[in-house]
Amino acid sequence: MDQPPKLSELVSRGQLLAAECPSRDVLRHVTSRWGVLVFMVLADGTHRFSELRGKIGGVSERMLAQTLKALEADGFVRRVSHPVVPPHVEYSLTPLGEELAPMVTTLADWIETKFPFIQAGMAAEPAE
Amino acid sequence: MDQPPKLSELVSRGQLLAAECPSRDVLRHVTSRWGVLVFMVLADGTHRFSELRGKIGGVSERMLAQTLKALEADGFVRRVSHPVVPPHVEYSLTPLGEELAPMVTTLADWIETKFPFIQAGMAAEPAE
Repeated sequence: MDQPPKLSELVSRGQLLAAECPSRDVLRHVTSRWGVLVFMVLADGTHRFSELRGKIGGVSERMLAQTLKALEADGFVRRVSHPVVPPHVEYSLTPLGEELAPMVTTLADWIETKFPFIQAGMAAEPAE
Repeated sequence: MDQPPKLSELVSRGQLLAAECPSRDVLRHVTSRWGVLVFMVLADGTHRFSELRGKIGGVSERMLAQTLKALEADGFVRRVSHPVVPPHVEYSLTPLGEELAPMVTTLADWIETKFPFIQAGMAAEPAE
């Protein structure tokens, strides 16, 4: 299969960015409210569902399950269910997820680090 | 002002990730459906509103205006209105936006490049 052109190349050539491009869904999963945090926690290693929930403040059981399911379907997260009672389910990053995690972390960390400046700028609304 | 700890450090220390952290809004603007594409187009230089709309397929006037407004309020986008008739409004990245743009582009490009593999994985659903 030919390597597709990079998105930034398409943009710089002035080509239309198709709104319906399905890769946009993947980007949305990765950069979703909880997707970013799931990447950050799993970058540290395998976690059980309850451990993930404990580390990610404010996520509901339903939203966490939905986020994990989407990232699993995209091939970023591996779910392993151990056939024991009570059920023991573990989540970890796949090799694809491991490759992506540093990019997500870099972006989120940058925003977090710069946030005081961003907020200062917000307070000082430009007079127009 | 003290440098705040990195988000990934907070996570690895097992601290709660506050759901209400306002920096999460900034991340959401940056990684929104249209935010990513605005960054990619403006990384190439100053554009008028109509030029931006022409390059970003499928965006409505309203959604583009809303995206630009959020990114302007965050301090990533500069809006310059020339006092002429008809109005002439130009958008460009601020220094903060220039710093962030490569991270957004790298993430989006990676997903775009890997998408054939991701899609192939989706087709081959794991038998469980």
